[in-house]
Amino acid sequence: MLKIGVIGCGAIGREHIRRLTNLVPGAVVVACSDYWRKSAEETAGQYGIQNVYDTGEELIAAKDVEAIVITSSDSSHAAYVLESLKHGKYVFCEKPLAQKSSDCEKIIAEEIKHGRRLIQVGFMRRYDRGYAEMKRIIESGELGAPLMIHACHRNVSQTDGFQTEMGITNVAIHELDICRWLLGDEYKNAQVLKVRQSARSTKGYDNPQIVLLETSGGCRIDVEVQVADAYGYDIQCQVVCEQGTIDLPDPSAVVKRANAARSFPILTDWADRFIEAYDIELTEWMQAVGKEKLTGPSSWDGYAACVAADTLNRSRGTNRFLEIEMIGKPDLYQAR
Amino acid sequence: MLKIGVIGCGAIGREHIRRLTNLVPGAVVVACSDYWRKSAEETAGQYGIQNVYDTGEELIAAKDVEAIVITSSDSSHAAYVLESLKHGKYVFCEKPLAQKSSDCEKIIAEEIKHGRRLIQVGFMRRYDRGYAEMKRIIESGELGAPLMIHACHRNVSQTDGFQTEMGITNVAIHELDICRWLLGDEYKNAQVLKVRQSARSTKGYDNPQIVLLETSGGCRIDVEVQVADAYGYDIQCQVVCEQGTIDLPDPSAVVKRANAARSFPILTDWADRFIEAYDIELTEWMQAVGKEKLTGPSSWDGYAACVAADTLNRSRGTNRFLEIEMIGKPDLYQAR
Amino acid sequence: MLKIGVIGCGAIGREHIRRLTNLVPGAVVVACSDYWRKSAEETAGQYGIQNVYDTGEELIAAKDVEAIVITSSDSSHAAYVLESLKHGKYVFCEKPLAQKSSDCEKIIAEEIKHGRRLIQVGFMRRYDRGYAEMKRIIESGELGAPLMIHACHRNVSQTDGFQTEMGITNVAIHELDICRWLLGDEYKNAQVLKVRQSARSTKGYDNPQIVLLETSGGCRIDVEVQVADAYGYDIQCQVVCEQGTIDLPDPSAVVKRANAARSFPILTDWADRFIEAYDIELTEWMQAVGKEKLTGPSSWDGYAACVAADTLNRSRGTNRFLEIEMIGKPDLYQAR
Amino acid sequence: MLKIGVIGCGAIGREHIRRLTNLVPGAVVVACSDYWRKSAEETAGQYGIQNVYDTGEELIAAKDVEAIVITSSDSSHAAYVLESLKHGKYVFCEKPLAQKSSDCEKIIAEEIKHGRRLIQVGFMRRYDRGYAEMKRIIESGELGAPLMIHACHRNVSQTDGFQTEMGITNVAIHELDICRWLLGDEYKNAQVLKVRQSARSTKGYDNPQIVLLETSGGCRIDVEVQVADAYGYDIQCQVVCEQGTIDLPDPSAVVKRANAARSFPILTDWADRFIEAYDIELTEWMQAVGKEKLTGPSSWDGYAACVAADTLNRSRGTNRFLEIEMIGKPDLYQAR
Repeated sequence: MLKIGVIGCGAIGREHIRRLTNLVPGAVVVACSDYWRKSAEETAGQYGIQNVYDTGEELIAAKDVEAIVITSSDSSHAAYVLESLKHGKYVFCEKPLAQKSSDCEKIIAEEIKHGRRLIQVGFMRRYDRGYAEMKRIIESGELGAPLMIHACHRNVSQTDGFQTEMGITNVAIHELDICRWLLGDEYKNAQVLKVRQSARSTKGYDNPQIVLLETSGGCRIDVEVQVADAYGYDIQCQVVCEQGTIDLPDPSAVVKRANAARSFPILTDWADRFIEAYDIELTEWMQAVGKEKLTGPSSWDGYAACVAADTLNRSRGTNRFLEIEMIGKPDLYQAR
Repeated sequence: MLKIGVIGCGAIGREHIRRLTNLVPGAVVVACSDYWRKSAEETAGQYGIQNVYDTGEELIAAKDVEAIVITSSDSSHAAYVLESLKHGKYVFCEKPLAQKSSDCEKIIAEEIKHGRRLIQVGFMRRYDRGYAEMKRIIESGELGAPLMIHACHRNVSQTDGFQTEMGITNVAIHELDICRWLLGDEYKNAQVLKVRQSARSTKGYDNPQIVLLETSGGCRIDVEVQVADAYGYDIQCQVVCEQGTIDLPDPSAVVKRANAARSFPILTDWADRFIEAYDIELTEWMQAVGKEKLTGPSSWDGYAACVAADTLNRSRGTNRFLEIEMIGKPDLYQAR
Repeated sequence: MLKIGVIGCGAIGREHIRRLTNLVPGAVVVACSDYWRKSAEETAGQYGIQNVYDTGEELIAAKDVEAIVITSSDSSHAAYVLESLKHGKYVFCEKPLAQKSSDCEKIIAEEIKHGRRLIQVGFMRRYDRGYAEMKRIIESGELGAPLMIHACHRNVSQTDGFQTEMGITNVAIHELDICRWLLGDEYKNAQVLKVRQSARSTKGYDNPQIVLLETSGGCRIDVEVQVADAYGYDIQCQVVCEQGTIDLPDPSAVVKRANAARSFPILTDWADRFIEAYDIELTEWMQAVGKEKLTGPSSWDGYAACVAADTLNRSRGTNRFLEIEMIGKPDLYQAR
Repeated sequence: MLKIGVIGCGAIGREHIRRLTNLVPGAVVVACSDYWRKSAEETAGQYGIQNVYDTGEELIAAKDVEAIVITSSDSSHAAYVLESLKHGKYVFCEKPLAQKSSDCEKIIAEEIKHGRRLIQVGFMRRYDRGYAEMKRIIESGELGAPLMIHACHRNVSQTDGFQTEMGITNVAIHELDICRWLLGDEYKNAQVLKVRQSARSTKGYDNPQIVLLETSGGCRIDVEVQVADAYGYDIQCQVVCEQGTIDLPDPSAVVKRANAARSFPILTDWADRFIEAYDIELTEWMQAVGKEKLTGPSSWDGYAACVAADTLNRSRGTNRFLEIEMIGKPDLYQAR
């Protein structure tokens, strides 16, 4: 059994603890911590976790903690990852890896010193069966090279305090990762466009926004981002290849014919949409840690998404494509 | 221009007059009649029809009437068809050809005397693009021989006076024709089943019913018949062949995503569903009359549907398959 | 951890052992046996199972075996279930529970003596998310009462030795269970129809067949059964309610547009179709055993499917509906 | 009967002559001309057209020609339209109205002198039932204001001599018209993007291209343009409104299940895709001419599409949005 410590006992933290406890074979959560100690204690009581620590640093240092799951607030991720690296422990860090690309670069530099990957970033969509099948088809070459991606990311609501920039760093961030992954390519330039605003969006942030990206290989990507007030939580993705297109499937749903319409439901909660992907993600991470060979999204992937997001946010209002500037890709992240 | 007389100026009669006048090239309606003379006069006024006759017989006999369209009440069809045959004039008769199979046999006998087809029956579904494409695929042999048909016929409402037997003779009659046509085969036996009745159906007739048929070639057909109170007017048909299945397409419709559902509308009025088929049906009939070579549904087709409907209605409550007994198929109807 | 012994190490047995070992929390397989001892030994080696027994009886009697999974040949199920009941141990028995309804009755009589359910039958479709959602909608009443079910069960191939009757007892048996479950009703009569045979089916058994059923409540069910040679493994089910219909969803699949067609793949292997249902089935069984309160398919459900299958096979060639005769439902199986 | 003269007897010209002769009530083609006189003579022979003229100018001037249909080469459109205006005759001009926006402005100026609309431009998509229903839904307001359009225009092949700029002026031109029409808005700026080129496109022109547009109201439009070598002729259009989205329907098609796939065909010939729209377009134009009140796409619409196309072609390679500059909209084109 791998002994895991979880930093951050909010919604996603508790959900991961439930998953590790009930569904993922070979995992046991032995420690947790939270900014609000009471939250950590309640969670520990609910899931029979032995130790509650006052700080993430103490949890990371604890002898019996073999691997760390970071589900704390976004701004704290980078520091906990760096601290974990000091102890040479495996880390599963929810996205984003860091809020500044310079922090990502620091993490990469420290990880390289270990000579092997210790960090996985929580881009769970790579574990969704639909995206995985799309990647399989693209790489099979049966439809020729990919040329374009048309994507949509539509949400029902956001928590208080949401800001325009978060439409990129917290929402479109998933597309920033999944498009790179599907295409096996890096971004060259990017631009965010303001769109006629929805009358339903009155909370002070831009909604919708459109993200445009070009890759090194010349592929073009457009992503419609409705951060809130959409008809449901709906994720769409079409990859256009030389000889055909492939679409991300809608979640399986019962089709109803009633009231003079044929219909099927669309989810409204993002947590339902990728629930199976989360299960597979943590199961595969556990297995990879067991074999001491991580294969999931890396620090480099966290960095690439972070740089693209920064560039997009800087482009807002400029009405032009800005170059995306990244450091050279270290050898550690070259192999698949 | 072919000069046409129309007997029966009810809803379907006026609709056909509008179609012949505005849409079908080469046709002109020169005469009409109706049980209610006033109705015929109003229709004549609206469409500029020269002559109104007191009776169908007078209209049939009129010198300038070259072809007859019969859209009067069901019970009057057979007599008008026989009268038209006396004058050797072309007839387009709305379904049913007759209400008794013995009347159909009389019509067939009279038509044979003319040595060529003079009668076409209004089974318009054969002119629907979806059914036509299904027949093309079946006959191409690309999916092997047809083995089964699963069909549904769902209606929103019926006019007053509707009775259980009419669920077969007026509703399922379309499937009785189209299945024979798709399969190129005759029926061997048939059975109608009573089903748990919809609580919404309180008007004294059976609803729903299920029709089961077997063809001479051993194909099995099941038809769900909801004569009223369904969620819409919905016609479905799947032909199962040895190597695959084909489905009748739903009418083309805009797909909407809203209110946490993906949906498209289903029609509620039967007249909308096959409107294009009616247009093509009358246009092709006109062209066939022009060439003096009818190709559409024949008296034999009207007879076959009538015999099957009779047998089904006799089977009700017996819980068994009854043999379908038909006369031998005359040469006149052998060729396609 | 619940200690489980598995009788039968064929394909489905090994698959369940893999599932219990890798995916189902709280389960450990401690014993296995097989008619071919070598097969059991290989399986034990692969999954680290401690004890291999020469016979199912020895395995059932073993002290450390707390619950039994029966995945041996169909003809051996009933005897192993009865033997397990002697020891008062929980049993998960793959379908069929028994090959004769009299054996099912014996099992029921023995289980009743224990005063609580010990047996669950492997009707895994009840754990498929699609069927579960259909049942939820039916029971919600939002579409009114169910009136009819139209279903299809199409297979690619069968193993050697397959016979006509097995089209019911081994193939349609799943529909016999799932339709009862969806409708919450028992069967009243049944009939199997022979259909024009596929030219591709030359192995001596009927293919396709059509199953017709009527429930006590008057619902009608038709099931097309292609036991082999179909275009894929395709399971379809439509429940027609008073106010609308619901369809079993197709498995989620990437839609491709290429070569002048829009398409998505259909599975060809049944094991892929319900893989998630199997996972959920065994996980929920484990949890129910832990709570000492079985909720899955019962001996009664195994009996009901067996009686219906027997009646269908007796009806073949009679061209009529035969009454389905069952014993009264014992109290033990009344509660949900 | 309206007496029509057709200038240009190529593929589209002959198709319109067939349509006017066989399908459109009230029309008769009395004259035709073509750059290749022989082509005009053959066409006249085939359709029984009385007069063949050496030049379009002679045809326009002919006494018995009441209305003109222009289906000659693109570069000749503007001159024939201006010539027709001199004679005050009604014109149906295939798109484009002119190749330079300055020519469109001349036409507008001349038409205004007549004080009423004489010209209709052949943007047939407005007569497609799918687009018409989309416009109806948008204008109903049931989904709130439109915010974005995502569209695709994919072609199988182009004739020899095709050039990059024609991807806009001859292909995307349809989207340039239909998006304005759907949104009821004018364009503010535009940009065309080069994309990773398909290895299948080796004929010297850009393929694919992406068109980006912003309207005065702030709506954003993206159009993927594959001018050739796509998997079929496929037109897709999604309008995203505040409360939901609507999709242009695929053409109705028989769904096939075979060879382990569910599929339906995609058209490959553009002429099949909008054949019904062409029929409706000419029928409604005839009726409008009869009432002396044109309602279809106007000179202004031809001008707006032309200016947008010009701007897009100028933007190629600039990597930025260029302003779209139009003259003020004359009163003549204000009313709907």
